[in-house]
Amino acid sequence: MAEEPKVDTATAEKVRASFAAQGLMTTLGAEILTLGPGTCRIAAPITAATGQQQGFAHAGLTFAIGDSAAGYAALGLMPPEAEVVTAEMRIHLLAPATGQRLVAEGRVIRPGRRLMVVQADVYAEGAGAERRHVALLTGTMVPVIA
Amino acid sequence: MAEEPKVDTATAEKVRASFAAQGLMTTLGAEILTLGPGTCRIAAPITAATGQQQGFAHAGLTFAIGDSAAGYAALGLMPPEAEVVTAEMRIHLLAPATGQRLVAEGRVIRPGRRLMVVQADVYAEGAGAERRHVALLTGTMVPVIA
Amino acid sequence: MAEEPKVDTATAEKVRASFAAQGLMTTLGAEILTLGPGTCRIAAPITAATGQQQGFAHAGLTFAIGDSAAGYAALGLMPPEAEVVTAEMRIHLLAPATGQRLVAEGRVIRPGRRLMVVQADVYAEGAGAERRHVALLTGTMVPVIA
Amino acid sequence: MAEEPKVDTATAEKVRASFAAQGLMTTLGAEILTLGPGTCRIAAPITAATGQQQGFAHAGLTFAIGDSAAGYAALGLMPPEAEVVTAEMRIHLLAPATGQRLVAEGRVIRPGRRLMVVQADVYAEGAGAERRHVALLTGTMVPVIA
Repeated sequence: MAEEPKVDTATAEKVRASFAAQGLMTTLGAEILTLGPGTCRIAAPITAATGQQQGFAHAGLTFAIGDSAAGYAALGLMPPEAEVVTAEMRIHLLAPATGQRLVAEGRVIRPGRRLMVVQADVYAEGAGAERRHVALLTGTMVPVIA
Repeated sequence: MAEEPKVDTATAEKVRASFAAQGLMTTLGAEILTLGPGTCRIAAPITAATGQQQGFAHAGLTFAIGDSAAGYAALGLMPPEAEVVTAEMRIHLLAPATGQRLVAEGRVIRPGRRLMVVQADVYAEGAGAERRHVALLTGTMVPVIA
Repeated sequence: MAEEPKVDTATAEKVRASFAAQGLMTTLGAEILTLGPGTCRIAAPITAATGQQQGFAHAGLTFAIGDSAAGYAALGLMPPEAEVVTAEMRIHLLAPATGQRLVAEGRVIRPGRRLMVVQADVYAEGAGAERRHVALLTGTMVPVIA
Repeated sequence: MAEEPKVDTATAEKVRASFAAQGLMTTLGAEILTLGPGTCRIAAPITAATGQQQGFAHAGLTFAIGDSAAGYAALGLMPPEAEVVTAEMRIHLLAPATGQRLVAEGRVIRPGRRLMVVQADVYAEGAGAERRHVALLTGTMVPVIA
């Protein structure tokens, strides 16, 4: 958790400003844990307000932070003037998301000028030592010059 | 909007009780519009609290209601004692999700005893007559007997 | 099968020359049935040489003609100087592919300047009247200017 | 290439018999390189007979050996009486597949009684030292008891 961001200050600023402007991330209580060149970790609490009918974290929450972690991982490798947009994303749900919070770890698999292939693993963390791999996301990010 | 649900009363009850128990659906302001055998339509408003950094609906919102619409479409074809779980889901984002609300239309492509292949289209609806196709989801639902 | 291609002659020529240059299509015995603006149908026989261990058509055959049908559907909507490349493609296998031949029907879901979202359905056809939906492909095509 | 298979003899026999019965693998000139518990590596030559219109390996070849490597990785973790079937598979094409041969490396991400999530990386190998990551496959395998 105490890892220092390894991207330059301007990129870190750009990512954090973009994140702060995402109303859904605030609604979900999500926060950026770490940010590196081609990597990003985002956490969100598992609460009743973000759950599904059996009390687990909703797949929509898991998807939202996994997609954002993958997107900001990609944004860190793009030119300063670029924004990032998800073209398509696929989520494999591996295990019930129970515990206190979810942590999504995004990374770039293949950087490209026109397309970036990204992945994110999402883990559920509980009160004890356990950490469970609950989802795998794979997708395509597209840079957009505003 | 005024279409009558075409599933039997017990199934409609089961789906609506399950939906009401999904905290995230309440947080997102989502509601079920219609429910048929193998189909389900869900709507959610586009607000600042569910947006992304450019003011469009967040992909997490689009995914969440698309996934739920596909899941409840599948649940309507399952035995009464079954619950439904998403095994994997892929979303193609087709256009920016702007307007007043999103409507997700889920349907079963191929029912199966062990796997159901599902799709959902998500449309953005605005104040005027326009209706834009903003996302296509394709995935696999698995019945779970509690 | 007797439908006339509805694309202009230059595009039809370009597609057929490209198809003829694909060694794998020849190896698989595949042929283009019809070609329209944003659509393409391709057939291939089911033989021992393209089968899997249970005697059904191999998923590799199903994928290959589904991907090609989707790609040529997209190529028909691109500028004359463009080639098409698959960025990613996902196949859902719906039923065992048995019978005499497979027919893949590709179409463009969303044309775009930088990305085209495509789909293909693959059907197995037998000696009798039956026709079975055996696969659904969804993917992303990218135009490449040589 | 000289790694000894680490699965038990009966499983290795089962996999190799299944592979030998896949006509398409023979047609493509594919062979199993290594086999472990939850892993499998398969190679195939890049030839004109398996190429696409630009002379690269066809995505259908890349898919076919990636899917098989992922499937046999999964089969190695299943009970002796089980067969394995691909429910869905997605391929990301990362770079043109040029060189002398393709090598697909399959592995199980998450074993399960009813579903197995699998991945495969495909590399192109040439005359020199270079080795290029050309594709990433992610999918779902289902055990079938005959």
